[in-house]
This record gives sequence, C-alpha cells and structure tokens, in this order.
Amino acid sequence: MKTKEIAIKSSFKEQIIDITSKIEDSLKKSNIKDGICNVFCPHTTAGLMINENADHSVKKDILMKLKKIVSEDLEYTHSEGNSSAHVKSSLVGVSLNIPVKNGKLVLGMWQGVFFAEFDGPRDRKIIFSIL
Amino acid sequence: MKTKEIAIKSSFKEQIIDITSKIEDSLKKSNIKDGICNVFCPHTTAGLMINENADHSVKKDILMKLKKIVSEDLEYTHSEGNSSAHVKSSLVGVSLNIPVKNGKLVLGMWQGVFFAEFDGPRDRKIIFSIL
Amino acid sequence: MKTKEIAIKSSFKEQIIDITSKIEDSLKKSNIKDGICNVFCPHTTAGLMINENADHSVKKDILMKLKKIVSEDLEYTHSEGNSSAHVKSSLVGVSLNIPVKNGKLVLGMWQGVFFAEFDGPRDRKIIFSIL
Repeated sequence: MKTKEIAIKSSFKEQIIDITSKIEDSLKKSNIKDGICNVFCPHTTAGLMINENADHSVKKDILMKLKKIVSEDLEYTHSEGNSSAHVKSSLVGVSLNIPVKNGKLVLGMWQGVFFAEFDGPRDRKIIFSIL
Repeated sequence: MKTKEIAIKSSFKEQIIDITSKIEDSLKKSNIKDGICNVFCPHTTAGLMINENADHSVKKDILMKLKKIVSEDLEYTHSEGNSSAHVKSSLVGVSLNIPVKNGKLVLGMWQGVFFAEFDGPRDRKIIFSIL
Repeated sequence: MKTKEIAIKSSFKEQIIDITSKIEDSLKKSNIKDGICNVFCPHTTAGLMINENADHSVKKDILMKLKKIVSEDLEYTHSEGNSSAHVKSSLVGVSLNIPVKNGKLVLGMWQGVFFAEFDGPRDRKIIFSIL
C-alpha cells in the first residue's frame, strides 16, 4: 500500500475545492490498475464529498444550504467559535473510498471529488492511499 | 479485485430501496470469504445508507425528516432545480464499506443496505467491489 | 484480513465516546504496519465519526446541534419512538476508513475516533477490520 500526502490551500472561510485531478495524478503515479482508493481528511473543521462538478452552482448551493442547516448557535460552548465547522465535518465525513478500474477512478459522469473547507482560509492536506 | 455494476430502478421522486440481497448475490458470486465490500453510488442526486430494514416506517421517517432538514430554498442557483437532492447526497454519502466474514456481510441484526433516491424516478446503478 | 469485535458501553441517551485507544490496541495486536483500517458500527441508532478530541466541548456542541437539526417530529410513524436516532445514524454514517502507516492510524493532530450513541444507554459493539 502506498500513502501520500497532497497539499491543499483554501482561500475562503467556506469553500468546496475540486481535487479530482490531484487524486487522479497520485493514482497514475501509483501504477495500480485495480483496487480501492481511499482519500482521508486529517482535519476536524473540513471534510470530503463527491458531488456534481459540471455546474459550479451546485457547490455554491451545498455551502449555502449547509450554512442554514448547521446555523450559528448561542448554545455552542467550544471557545474557538468554530463549532458549526466541526458539525459540518461530521455530517459530510472525512473519508472516501472510490473503486479504481484500469487505472482510473470509477466516478459517475457528473461526479468530482471535493475538499470541503468550513473554517478557512488555511493550508490543508489530504492523505491518498490505494489498496 | 472484482468490480461489478448492479442496476437499480427507482419508481418515485424520493425512495429508499433495500439493496442488501443484490449485494449478497454479488458477494456469493465473487467466492471471496473474508475482506471488505465497497458499494459505490456514481450519481450526484442519490446516496447509500445502512439502516433498519425490519420496520418499513423507518425508511419513511428518514425521507420525511431529510425533506424538512434539506428543505427547498429560494436561494438555490442551480438551474436544474434539484439542489436539495445534491445536498442530501452529500449528507448521506455515496460510498459504503462493509466487512465480510465467512462469505457474508457483517451487518447488524436490524441492518439493511439502502440505495437512497432523491431525484427519481430513474434508472440507476451501483458499483460493487470486494477486497 | 482480521475482523474483531470491540465492546462499547454507553451510559446516556446520547453520548459521543472516544474509541481511539481501543482501535489502536486492536491495530497493535494485528501486527499490520501499512494498510487501511475499517471500523464498522452494526447498529441503526448509533454511528461513527472522526472529530476533535482535544476540547471536550466540541463533542457536546455536536450532540446539541444534531438534536436541533434532527428534532423530534409529530409526523414520525416508527412505533419505537426513536426515529430521530435512526436519522442521525444515517447522517453521520456507520463506517469509517482510516489509513495505517508504520503500525499507526494516520489521524490528524486533533482527531479522535468516536462512537456516537443516539439511543442509549446500551451495550454496543463495533467491528474492527484491517486490510
């Protein structure tokens, strides 16, 4: 198994960043043709998701709606003031598994792999593994 | 590793479909006794979940509550008008990993594997892999 | 592949329990140095998540906010009266995959692995596997 860190840089407080090509690059370099690719986010105020990468308004709508669902809350006790980001991280998750066939991610036609920043801007990273 | 497509047909706009037996069939045909089974949904307005398959009211309650949590929203910008389905997909997720022991899914007594349709009816598919 | 059951005991109706050291113990005993560790929750009213384990207020804030997001609902039809717990389980998920390197979980500095009880107190278990 090969594990590799991939650097990601977010530019805004909240941002959905397409990382599909970064993962495909790491996959190519691994020379593995068939298996499962794991992408892991080692951060607690960010997450990973797979969704539509054709129309950019989908990413915008997801962030907007998550902000309403996980609204700010006077009852939060965590002193850093970023509890909503922690909740969002646990709702979207920090670990993805994508099948690999003939050296390619088996993604649907409209799917892209996204890093979801909920407490940026920050220097982030993801862990790429392949089995 | 073996990857296999399994066809799924949804009949309604929103529907939770039990796919446990379809996955168990593919598992049997793979002849693999121990490992991890990955189920992947290549769609951006549907997802996968594991929940109770004994009382069908649980599926109904989950869909009803998700509809309230991810309500329609005038601020959505995606022109296809199905942004709520995209949000739901990222909340429940599109990738499941289930341990396999002695040729069987290690599911809990009440657990079933579900395909969650959020923008049907459509012809869908899932990708079954086993490691 | 090695599969192992780990017992967990919740003490409250809702509780986020740090299980990182239990998983690390099982990992050590497996003697596997590199791979992917899968943690699976075989229950339908509980889940698994990875989030901050430094400040305990984060766990408290997550439970509090989830309670507001997945509020009780007069429209629930499931007779056991724990539908909110089923919905929460499908939102946070029941399966985690964590990369393993040099015999250690590749977790971020602030990350811990949590069992999320939504309908306790109960005797629970998780399934630990390593590939």
